[in-house]
Amino acid sequence: MTETEKEKLTIVVFSGELDRALAAFMLATTGASMGMDVSMYFTFWGLNILKKNEGSIKSRGLMRRMFNRVNRGGSKRLKISRFNMFGLGTWMMKRLMKEINHPSLEELITMAQEMGVKLIPCTTSCGLMGIQEDGFRSGIESLAGAAFFLNEARQSKVTLFI
Amino acid sequence: MTETEKEKLTIVVFSGELDRALAAFMLATTGASMGMDVSMYFTFWGLNILKKNEGSIKSRGLMRRMFNRVNRGGSKRLKISRFNMFGLGTWMMKRLMKEINHPSLEELITMAQEMGVKLIPCTTSCGLMGIQEDGFRSGIESLAGAAFFLNEARQSKVTLFI
Amino acid sequence: MTETEKEKLTIVVFSGELDRALAAFMLATTGASMGMDVSMYFTFWGLNILKKNEGSIKSRGLMRRMFNRVNRGGSKRLKISRFNMFGLGTWMMKRLMKEINHPSLEELITMAQEMGVKLIPCTTSCGLMGIQEDGFRSGIESLAGAAFFLNEARQSKVTLFI
Repeated sequence: MTETEKEKLTIVVFSGELDRALAAFMLATTGASMGMDVSMYFTFWGLNILKKNEGSIKSRGLMRRMFNRVNRGGSKRLKISRFNMFGLGTWMMKRLMKEINHPSLEELITMAQEMGVKLIPCTTSCGLMGIQEDGFRSGIESLAGAAFFLNEARQSKVTLFI
Repeated sequence: MTETEKEKLTIVVFSGELDRALAAFMLATTGASMGMDVSMYFTFWGLNILKKNEGSIKSRGLMRRMFNRVNRGGSKRLKISRFNMFGLGTWMMKRLMKEINHPSLEELITMAQEMGVKLIPCTTSCGLMGIQEDGFRSGIESLAGAAFFLNEARQSKVTLFI
Repeated sequence: MTETEKEKLTIVVFSGELDRALAAFMLATTGASMGMDVSMYFTFWGLNILKKNEGSIKSRGLMRRMFNRVNRGGSKRLKISRFNMFGLGTWMMKRLMKEINHPSLEELITMAQEMGVKLIPCTTSCGLMGIQEDGFRSGIESLAGAAFFLNEARQSKVTLFI
């Protein structure tokens, strides 16, 4: 089967919480392991998942700097969307994952990249939030716009908005 | 290419936050500009996006009136889903959009309407929340039920739940 | 038309709030009434919808017990995602539904089951949260993994992530 004949799975990752990020990457790696051609398109808070875990984003303008200080991101710093309880819930979720030997989000992202899952940041969101490409982890694709995403989506067997 | 041969994009807009509304309308206008036939189906909190910006909804019964007082809506009054910080985050987001000359939500909705995107409120949600058609902005479609949405969706190339 | 020729609708239910659960089950029952073959795949907080309304989940380990104490679930105990206002919003939403004779979530779930909608809990989430099959209501399918879901989804006319 040639590359172009592979079934496509496209996931828009809008959310930046740990639980939704886990769901997105579990589905992406599962899809890739089933032989699907997987693209993930990161927009708004979803960009936080791709941000580097070290330091914080350098961006121009006081307001963008403030915004990225509050909204720091990095796969290891995300919180769960419910019952975070000042970090206790997130800490428990991570412990529970370790206990059943479930890969962490960071490990899932690395797995996804090794399996050829494409990680694509949204141009408009990056412009809006003042994030430059050097703010992201290595190995991701170039920025792309909404038209690129819709073009992938209309060729996909499955498209999800998470 | 005739109208009926156009590829369809269908978006359920369940959420009523500014950031998710922006994502929905960016995708809708991009789809329309690519020649897709776009329908947006508004349900629950998503109805807030279509409410008039002036005044508040008149509805029968004390409870519905109270409900629509708290849950006012109007595209200019929506808040972002994270880091709202008593309005500061929403204000910053709007300023950042202006700085990069990104159209506001209000402008995106007008663009969408001019491009022929169909804006359809969900019958059941309107009944539940006591919203009558005169509570909405002009130029939207008649109310329709879930069966109508599913019928559109099963003919669509791409369906998203936002 | 034979079973295999029926159009499929697949819904991932990630969220555990009353409003999103209602949207998911309204769409599922509508799809079934239109003759579609409907599967719902419950993961993370969505599992709360399937938990028994009586008592609480028994799970091994102090942390899982604590987690399931906070995160109790049961279709009758879910809260709405916005304007819950310490339960007042949820109570109002339920009253408004009763007033227009809209079926409650519990009734919608029963209807869905009677119409043949398949309710499938996600294996990984159950393992993570320490939920055993006897913690769920009766009449649901066996646990299944993400590969099962993606396999359903790629055969579906419509797939939604709620």
